[in-house]
Amino acid sequence: MKKKKFLLDEDQMPKKWYNIVADLPNKPLPPLHPGTKEPISPDMLSPLFPDELIKQEVSEERFIDIPEEVLEKYKIYRPSPLIRAFELEKALGTDCKIYYKYEGGSPSGSHKPNTAIPQAYYNAKAGVRKITTETGAGQWGTALSFACAQYGIECDVYMVKSSFNQKPYRKIMMNTFGANVFPSPSERTQAGRNFLAENPNSSGSLGMAISEAVEMAVQDEHTKYSLGSVLNHVLLHQTIIGEEALKQFEMAEDYPDVIVAPLGGGSNFAGIAFPFLREKLQGNKEVRCVAVEPSSCPKLTKGKFMYDFGDTQGYTPLLPMFTLGHNFEPASIHAGGLRYHGASVLCSQLLKDGIIEANAIPQIECFEAGSLFAKYEGIIPAPESNHAIAQVLREVELAKKEGTTKTILFNLSGHGFVDMMAYSDYQNGNLEEHKLTKEEIENSISKIKNLQPQEVAIT
Amino acid sequence: MKKKKFLLDEDQMPKKWYNIVADLPNKPLPPLHPGTKEPISPDMLSPLFPDELIKQEVSEERFIDIPEEVLEKYKIYRPSPLIRAFELEKALGTDCKIYYKYEGGSPSGSHKPNTAIPQAYYNAKAGVRKITTETGAGQWGTALSFACAQYGIECDVYMVKSSFNQKPYRKIMMNTFGANVFPSPSERTQAGRNFLAENPNSSGSLGMAISEAVEMAVQDEHTKYSLGSVLNHVLLHQTIIGEEALKQFEMAEDYPDVIVAPLGGGSNFAGIAFPFLREKLQGNKEVRCVAVEPSSCPKLTKGKFMYDFGDTQGYTPLLPMFTLGHNFEPASIHAGGLRYHGASVLCSQLLKDGIIEANAIPQIECFEAGSLFAKYEGIIPAPESNHAIAQVLREVELAKKEGTTKTILFNLSGHGFVDMMAYSDYQNGNLEEHKLTKEEIENSISKIKNLQPQEVAIT
Repeated sequence: MKKKKFLLDEDQMPKKWYNIVADLPNKPLPPLHPGTKEPISPDMLSPLFPDELIKQEVSEERFIDIPEEVLEKYKIYRPSPLIRAFELEKALGTDCKIYYKYEGGSPSGSHKPNTAIPQAYYNAKAGVRKITTETGAGQWGTALSFACAQYGIECDVYMVKSSFNQKPYRKIMMNTFGANVFPSPSERTQAGRNFLAENPNSSGSLGMAISEAVEMAVQDEHTKYSLGSVLNHVLLHQTIIGEEALKQFEMAEDYPDVIVAPLGGGSNFAGIAFPFLREKLQGNKEVRCVAVEPSSCPKLTKGKFMYDFGDTQGYTPLLPMFTLGHNFEPASIHAGGLRYHGASVLCSQLLKDGIIEANAIPQIECFEAGSLFAKYEGIIPAPESNHAIAQVLREVELAKKEGTTKTILFNLSGHGFVDMMAYSDYQNGNLEEHKLTKEEIENSISKIKNLQPQEVAIT
Repeated sequence: MKKKKFLLDEDQMPKKWYNIVADLPNKPLPPLHPGTKEPISPDMLSPLFPDELIKQEVSEERFIDIPEEVLEKYKIYRPSPLIRAFELEKALGTDCKIYYKYEGGSPSGSHKPNTAIPQAYYNAKAGVRKITTETGAGQWGTALSFACAQYGIECDVYMVKSSFNQKPYRKIMMNTFGANVFPSPSERTQAGRNFLAENPNSSGSLGMAISEAVEMAVQDEHTKYSLGSVLNHVLLHQTIIGEEALKQFEMAEDYPDVIVAPLGGGSNFAGIAFPFLREKLQGNKEVRCVAVEPSSCPKLTKGKFMYDFGDTQGYTPLLPMFTLGHNFEPASIHAGGLRYHGASVLCSQLLKDGIIEANAIPQIECFEAGSLFAKYEGIIPAPESNHAIAQVLREVELAKKEGTTKTILFNLSGHGFVDMMAYSDYQNGNLEEHKLTKEEIENSISKIKNLQPQEVAIT
């Protein structure tokens, strides 16, 4: 029998996270204070994060030890399997080898607990009693709810109001793990009240929810804030995915020519790609890494590399990144995790330096790819993951045209059990494509400069 | 680090299913023809099932080889992990060791594909072009939809109308795997039209849906019928669960004192318990096996052991089993998979002979147990599985009172991602207990004898 799944035992789990900053040819520019526009010092982040996470955020060490207590909790669902998509390959009639790393077996059903657990751990160690966060479709909020339950920390989740109303399952999951969930914008924060005063019917956005969660964290010394993507320490924690995959490819006696992952803030992509990029940057092994974004939120392929806020209200530090502008309102596609205006600093720097590639794909093509995958591989993917699968199918098609074969690895970052309505829309022909015009994008980006003069464009 | 998960490699997957008939001290009574009341011969089942499955249904061989092609498909999600519930044990403050076999990682999210795959395989081998089946909450229909997609067979699912309307997610999953789903009772069958003539607003039942699926199968020579529980060959296929668990307990250098599983038709319970019961019946190792049913559908603890139909219309053979009467309408509890009037012949015989135990638990206690489990172990269980967890907590409590410890194994037969509304009802205090009176049960059972004189009571 040909081996379909490459499994690691618990004692083979990687003991270190990988920090790509150590190997970047160009170090990323520093974050700037939103008011002074001066580089911020680590201690300025103290109201938001415990010291250990701030240290990781600014670290240039290549490897960072995973605490024993975190490894214990990772064991609840890790190591995750590397799976060869034999059934899909057969259905496609391709000689390409397709592998996927499946992160959907976690408590929240995605890769998010990989960082939720260490974040909750470091907060607990620092005596923090409550963590606030935002969530869009609910993946991140679910992961943090679970992690906080593990360490006895209270968890307040500000959930984008449209999701709160349309996706009750995710809210109930968070409640099941013991978290409090508030629809955002809410009346609980000044930021929320501001948004509501401006638009009482606002359905919310990730940027608004971040503003609310941050505001609540800075007001109380026992409360901290937690983010599920974008930041360096979040990407760092996710590298457990790629570190495992490296070991599993050794077992498979194989190596990927191309790695594909969706990119919302960047943690999904970074998680699987960064450890392989280390091998590339150190000159050991070549690999193409492709970040896939939705056509309706094309920050990597159509955005601009500049300093921008992470949130709508302008509370967060300014980060140098590919962005569509922090007031950009992405169309309400089903891949909620990819509806974010900016890309993480690290992923942005890699793209700017030509070390990784990016591609934007419309959502109907993504659901078509995901449905095919489900039928043959038996896992119904999350809408975010469908973006990776669509790119895989494009790679296979390209290989056919070129008469070549290749080994493809993608991150199946989550399952779609809680997203079946999206599949229903697809099956019933109710999925819309949201075509952004060049003018809309330019308009959104230009707004930053006109309305928020404190941003510093970098050329 | 203490080992949490015991994983088998694909090449360690058991190569044989176990047929408990070979070891039963009292062989079960034969099924009877619904009209003649005479024992049926295997060929009478030919309109419904392919020959290979009929052979398995009546086999007395102890072990039956799993075909290589089925093992290949099992590899899509098997072997499943055996997991030590360290986090739950700690939360309970118990010295008991709690293990669970997790079947929720399959394409449908439960143990059901273990039999759906071989059933689809044998049908495909026999040239069958379409399979009809019924489904309650949708677990079985999802599993068969996936299995049929693997072998290119068309799949028609008759879904209990109340579930069809209340649980759209399951329907969409079946559609995603390519199946046709019809609400039952439907206008497509004579049985359906009969039910609707009697009650145009009927919300359906599993018994009605079976009648519809059976009727469609017998009408066409290229169409067969498939059942997701109750029958001997279905229970046989599920023994892969317990066979794996036996190997995994060897790895753990441990052995269960008690095994707990929910019982709807019996395949969940049989799957995990039968291989351990072999060791017990052969005098090798003692074990208690407890089947758990909902208080609102207590066939094992309050039903009668007698011949009864598997369906409402009276199409199926008469089977000797613990039953509440085939017209019994279980309350609409959330554990849809446990809402069935009868128990499989094999489980019924084992209970009658005192080889296994049974217990009925009310649903609120089950959701309380399941929620506790979710919070600590990170898996939100299916409502059916919550019944097992509630029994585990009772076993732990009992051990505490007795001042003993024990090793407990239970079947975590599925996840609850598609059942979050049930958890919401629980959290909001909207779960009702359905208390059956003795009179209601007696009335339901007596109806069989009065209205269906062809049943033969066995004393």
